[in-house]
Amino acid sequence: MKTLADIGEDALVRRITGRLHSDKSVLIGPGDDCAVVQGPARGQALVLKTDTIVEGVHFTFDTPARLVGRKAVARVLSDFAAMAATPRHALVTLIAPVSTQVKRILDLYQGMEKIAREHGVRIVGGETSRGGQLILTISMSGTLPHPCRLTRAAASAGDFIAVTGRLGGSIRGRHLKFQPRLKEAHWLAQNARINAMMDISDGLAKDLPRLADASGLGFELQHAALPRSPGCTIAQALNDGEDYELLLTLPARTAEKTAAAFNRSFPKVRMTLIGHMLADAAQRNLDLHGGWDHFLK
Amino acid sequence: MKTLADIGEDALVRRITGRLHSDKSVLIGPGDDCAVVQGPARGQALVLKTDTIVEGVHFTFDTPARLVGRKAVARVLSDFAAMAATPRHALVTLIAPVSTQVKRILDLYQGMEKIAREHGVRIVGGETSRGGQLILTISMSGTLPHPCRLTRAAASAGDFIAVTGRLGGSIRGRHLKFQPRLKEAHWLAQNARINAMMDISDGLAKDLPRLADASGLGFELQHAALPRSPGCTIAQALNDGEDYELLLTLPARTAEKTAAAFNRSFPKVRMTLIGHMLADAAQRNLDLHGGWDHFLK
Repeated sequence: MKTLADIGEDALVRRITGRLHSDKSVLIGPGDDCAVVQGPARGQALVLKTDTIVEGVHFTFDTPARLVGRKAVARVLSDFAAMAATPRHALVTLIAPVSTQVKRILDLYQGMEKIAREHGVRIVGGETSRGGQLILTISMSGTLPHPCRLTRAAASAGDFIAVTGRLGGSIRGRHLKFQPRLKEAHWLAQNARINAMMDISDGLAKDLPRLADASGLGFELQHAALPRSPGCTIAQALNDGEDYELLLTLPARTAEKTAAAFNRSFPKVRMTLIGHMLADAAQRNLDLHGGWDHFLK
Repeated sequence: MKTLADIGEDALVRRITGRLHSDKSVLIGPGDDCAVVQGPARGQALVLKTDTIVEGVHFTFDTPARLVGRKAVARVLSDFAAMAATPRHALVTLIAPVSTQVKRILDLYQGMEKIAREHGVRIVGGETSRGGQLILTISMSGTLPHPCRLTRAAASAGDFIAVTGRLGGSIRGRHLKFQPRLKEAHWLAQNARINAMMDISDGLAKDLPRLADASGLGFELQHAALPRSPGCTIAQALNDGEDYELLLTLPARTAEKTAAAFNRSFPKVRMTLIGHMLADAAQRNLDLHGGWDHFLK
């Protein structure tokens, strides 16, 4: 019998989501950064996202608890940024060994609460249970303030590919302290024409193919153009993961203007054009075995 | 330094939630069965709930995966029932060892999907990660169709205490196969006057004091009146937990009429009056050390 280590995360997710039933209340279903559904009032979209961080996978026992809490919430904020959505309320599920010090848990919540408040998000409840390792799961709901829907599936052949910030080397600290690109995403939704957008959490080598798959396209990446963190190789920029930057595609006609305007508004973050989308889905100049997979051997 | 085993779940939750900031968008915050917040459109309430089940705590390795999936979703449906809310969309967070068989995971989702569909809920996404034990976390959102808000905090002195169904012995199978009392809760919200309501997940001995605490009241329980599952003692009915029945308080004047009407509508479930609420919060005729705690030694 096959195990998760045999098939890997993407194949598992495909097999799970292929069986889920949908209806017209589901505006954007499984496979994108967030789900978007009809809200309680007709015509008002509701954005939903859940994410989890696990001790020994996403952080270590030695990681300061405030930074662990911060990271758990910031990852979800990054997914809201990827849809140019506005996060509003969060629930927290805590799994912890009974031997965990109370102070560590309170520090976790302090870290979560602080970054949540900075982005106008209220923690409104949650659940606790004992378990073998510390796990924080955040579920967040919010709104879509812009009329555009920024999915992974809307890239067009010929689009320029762009990323914000710099890639690679996140493990040296940025994975705990990154700024979710909410401000930048809302600026883009308001001021630029974007076709597709997502955030880079598992590394460009993993996430760009996902965007291409969702859009049914190929791509040509200019490896030398990748904006790298200081001291990082191209391979690290592609594969390290946990960048939490925006990956987007821009219509070729306006891409350079958009990047220039973005760089004037966000000179410390900057946007870099790194390639373009191709009509042939088989054409992809990238080592597909890179990036981060939760299950693969 | 104190650990979770020293202070227990309720004290931990009090310490966590005491520090959370709220605002006027939070209609019902931490401490009730679900959170209720302002939805995307003003005036439309959004109901949010997360819950988790952990291998070795809520189920064993031998539990058929479909029943594990069913239980994970049914527990959250039971919380929606406790607020007479209507669940609509769910996200699933899966933690699993890499050695888990793919079939086990697909069976989990089949169990989740089936009970979700039976109650009109769509699974619209989620997240996966590896971890040391199998853990399913469900977060669900929905609506409040009735004008009443059924919290734990609204019991009045003199209210009759009522429960649906029978208590105790859930471990013999019912904890995997229970029917969330959504239909019954919506009937009650429409046809009866209820003051407070919650679901019994940790046992009446644990949950009735929580309702009394939230309402600032005491209670007198008629132990002999407890509706017990076949073969169960009063102690088991109080302490076993995982009953997933409704616990509610009814104005004394109409309580008996409400119970009689309920029993005509739901003759197989039935409602039983089991005591009444007292003005003095210190007066409680119950062994407070019973029930289920996730962390206490």
